[in-house]
Amino acid sequence: MTIDATPSESLSVLDRLRRLDPPERAAALSRLPPERARELFEQLEAPLQEDVLAFLRDDQVDRLLEDLDPDDRVRLLETLPEIVAKALLARLSPRERRLTHKLLAFPEESAGRIMSPEYLPLRPWLGVDEALALIRQEGHRAGTVHLLPVLDHEDRLVGLVPLDALVLADPEETVGEVMRTQVPSVGPETDQERVAGLIQAEDLLALPVVDDSGRLLGLITVDDAMDVVREEEAEDFARAGASEPLDRPYFSIGLLRLTRARLLWLLLLGLAGALTVNVLSAFESLLEQAISLSLFIPLLIGIGGNSGAQSATTVIRAMAVREIDQAHPIRVIFRETGVGLLLGSAVAAIAYLPVVLLFGPALAATVSLTLVAICTLATLVGSGMPLLARRLGIDPAVVSAPVVTTLVDASGLVVYFSIARALMGL
Amino acid sequence: MTIDATPSESLSVLDRLRRLDPPERAAALSRLPPERARELFEQLEAPLQEDVLAFLRDDQVDRLLEDLDPDDRVRLLETLPEIVAKALLARLSPRERRLTHKLLAFPEESAGRIMSPEYLPLRPWLGVDEALALIRQEGHRAGTVHLLPVLDHEDRLVGLVPLDALVLADPEETVGEVMRTQVPSVGPETDQERVAGLIQAEDLLALPVVDDSGRLLGLITVDDAMDVVREEEAEDFARAGASEPLDRPYFSIGLLRLTRARLLWLLLLGLAGALTVNVLSAFESLLEQAISLSLFIPLLIGIGGNSGAQSATTVIRAMAVREIDQAHPIRVIFRETGVGLLLGSAVAAIAYLPVVLLFGPALAATVSLTLVAICTLATLVGSGMPLLARRLGIDPAVVSAPVVTTLVDASGLVVYFSIARALMGL
Repeated sequence: MTIDATPSESLSVLDRLRRLDPPERAAALSRLPPERARELFEQLEAPLQEDVLAFLRDDQVDRLLEDLDPDDRVRLLETLPEIVAKALLARLSPRERRLTHKLLAFPEESAGRIMSPEYLPLRPWLGVDEALALIRQEGHRAGTVHLLPVLDHEDRLVGLVPLDALVLADPEETVGEVMRTQVPSVGPETDQERVAGLIQAEDLLALPVVDDSGRLLGLITVDDAMDVVREEEAEDFARAGASEPLDRPYFSIGLLRLTRARLLWLLLLGLAGALTVNVLSAFESLLEQAISLSLFIPLLIGIGGNSGAQSATTVIRAMAVREIDQAHPIRVIFRETGVGLLLGSAVAAIAYLPVVLLFGPALAATVSLTLVAICTLATLVGSGMPLLARRLGIDPAVVSAPVVTTLVDASGLVVYFSIARALMGL
Repeated sequence: MTIDATPSESLSVLDRLRRLDPPERAAALSRLPPERARELFEQLEAPLQEDVLAFLRDDQVDRLLEDLDPDDRVRLLETLPEIVAKALLARLSPRERRLTHKLLAFPEESAGRIMSPEYLPLRPWLGVDEALALIRQEGHRAGTVHLLPVLDHEDRLVGLVPLDALVLADPEETVGEVMRTQVPSVGPETDQERVAGLIQAEDLLALPVVDDSGRLLGLITVDDAMDVVREEEAEDFARAGASEPLDRPYFSIGLLRLTRARLLWLLLLGLAGALTVNVLSAFESLLEQAISLSLFIPLLIGIGGNSGAQSATTVIRAMAVREIDQAHPIRVIFRETGVGLLLGSAVAAIAYLPVVLLFGPALAATVSLTLVAICTLATLVGSGMPLLARRLGIDPAVVSAPVVTTLVDASGLVVYFSIARALMGL
């Protein structure tokens, strides 16, 4: 009865399973008692689960799939090729197949797909002791009993009771007296990211999913919400670095696959960047007359790109954590452009002295004025693009810092040469 | 007994509290029953809590602070000016003061600071029914009873029992028979980010913190772990966009403060970017001889910057989720540089034809060769910098995409002009 865990790191069986090669992972799971194997399998990420399935016998696969909770099963089926998923579905027991189809009927990325439809309903008129007896008797079948839904005569959700509140309550009380009535809930079509945000912001153990008339459909548990958070953050973070997100651990991906995940983004951005060659060609005679103009090109577009990235990142983040509502995109753009004007003015003031000493007043005025204009422009683009993307129904994170930076490059150069032409009399 | 919640969005009391101005937020909390006010206050982010305190009477502040769980109290005290924190600490009851000091003795960002030291210990020889009776009697005082630690005669951790397993178990069984023995645990000095990662990866409701001899010190609950995840992600994300993270909701921050959070980064990156002016000055005569070289400057450093950002983001992310161990930084750099070589070659091959048609073979060869070199260099810098930062004990996220991009700009130009000089015979 000694414990396997030490205060050191990377210790758990699960962590060790994750690091194994797929055939070894499958073999290790096969050697465990089925109940324990299912428990561990359930906690693996879907792509790792998929790897395991390929190395199990058909009857082992069927057994594993039959024992999974419906929401975990759906998560796995979603990653499999459709034909494989269909074959596996057909081999489930009628009861589990029905439950699975119920979840699959909801759109991808929706609350309905990650909810557990097997809940244990309590009634407000039950005594606390009766409720505990019911849980002991029937709780095994429910997806979670950490948080219990309370339903009225017509199965409408009227409250929630955490299991600890029930255990700690006076046995003489009723469920109706112990339950919380002011609880958030979502519809089955609500976006999973929104669900995860709500669970996180409210410190919930589970979130109820209800239909239009308030009837309970299922519960989404905190661990499923954390999985969504992890995936979404990985996605946003990868996009901020101009890559497609990786769905497997870093070292399990081959070089060619890593390259492919990045090449498309690099080419798209490169294509947009090719605009700068056109802009510079158009101003080539200006460059020939004042070669010193070219010295500031990387610096100016670099600062523009960075201030655009700052705006884009701030706005995308604020949208992700729901601090910006659909209501006031104009207010956001005004704020960001205001910040851009302030930032540009500050940087311009600081840059003026060294440039005037080294390159004279005409170039110094051009560079400083361009800094003000380019920072304002960059924050306008950086805040406007993600807001526009959302309005068009595209994930704002796709219009991330690198996209904004690339767009600002070409337009910033036009601004620079226009100011130079005006100020330097060329 | 109707429910306040509808399937619509942004519904909860907590969400509404977050959106109020500080004086109104304080007033709203004062009007609620104290127990409910404490519950809501506990769930607010620390900077928002701080705002509330300023608008409460001293006795209200003392009451609120006295009722908070020790870990929530520490989280709040950490954000207050030291002199205020000390004054508030002094006014706590001796018991709560002692508990608070115990947590404050651990380093910042460590597991010890976010653990709840008030746990209810079970013993393996207790019957399930005895255990439940004990929980009903003494559970009120514990920080959490969702997961219960099981200790031996010498208070060493030997297992964990989730409350649901206890409720669902056969009353004839003992705690020792129901508990899980293979459980992860951490030392009190473990980094909070590591703790959150472990809780997330293992789907735990709470993680035990033990001392060197395996004695239990406290439990870290999943909601505290989610708060850490949220803060760390916000920080990494802000850094990826060259800003300092904001600690308050976007719209509650004034323009000047938003500007200040970004100006320092912009200036630091601008200073590094000024290097490009030096590099270009050094090659000015080369530029005068072949002005067409200047046309490709933004495109080349843009592509270099993007591939560097891809590497940096991938490596920082893989480190954050512990997929890269301290062990093999060289292996990571080799992989990334290999990807860079492949990417650079692909982009170079695609770029060659249009450039040769428009600008002739010499410039086309220069541009293509530079693309290969610059992508390889960028991935080297992009993967090497965060790894180096970690080795030096700096948060790798600080050496983020914008830093890498800026560094690649100047060195990429040196590469470009060196290749041009060699190939174009200038």
